[in-house]
Amino acid sequence: MKKTNLYDENDFSDTAFTNYLVHESPYFKILNFNFKPGQELPVHSHEIEGQLSIFVVEGTGEFLGKDEATQPARSGDVLISDISDPHGVRAKTDMRVLVTIAPPI
Amino acid sequence: MKKTNLYDENDFSDTAFTNYLVHESPYFKILNFNFKPGQELPVHSHEIEGQLSIFVVEGTGEFLGKDEATQPARSGDVLISDISDPHGVRAKTDMRVLVTIAPPI
Repeated sequence: MKKTNLYDENDFSDTAFTNYLVHESPYFKILNFNFKPGQELPVHSHEIEGQLSIFVVEGTGEFLGKDEATQPARSGDVLISDISDPHGVRAKTDMRVLVTIAPPI
Repeated sequence: MKKTNLYDENDFSDTAFTNYLVHESPYFKILNFNFKPGQELPVHSHEIEGQLSIFVVEGTGEFLGKDEATQPARSGDVLISDISDPHGVRAKTDMRVLVTIAPPI
């Protein structure tokens, strides 16, 4: 067993969104990203099998998708996406998200 | 892509902890459990390969382990456990957790 805390381990930065690797194993990879308003994880995708979840821990913003599609993102949201589908996140307020990728890439 | 919100979909119950299946696929299974104070997911394990994460969305309590071991659990904590290692959760306050199991069981 291993325990870590997002609030202790990762802060916000005015320069760019911050990226904290919570865990990586053969089974999944878990990352925490913190965004200041306007910061974003640009839309991207990878041509491999698997799915990812994006959980909004706090804050509001938008989930980004294919062809500039957006949908609102708020605390408590879970977005599920194939790794091969374009996906991204943009923040409107300070925003913490937890991303789980299975299998890890 | 699929979006769901924990706060919209799952509440608390005085009778027993509540269990909301957020997502299940060949890659992972995602569950949300809500506990009132004193409610618990008893220690258990399964003899299969894989790992799970328990993210504390809100509230405080304890992570439970082998031989009645406990460690404090609070908002922002991520616990990683092998599926084959005994694990559980007990709440001290109203507590929401998000559990991801890979591969799904």
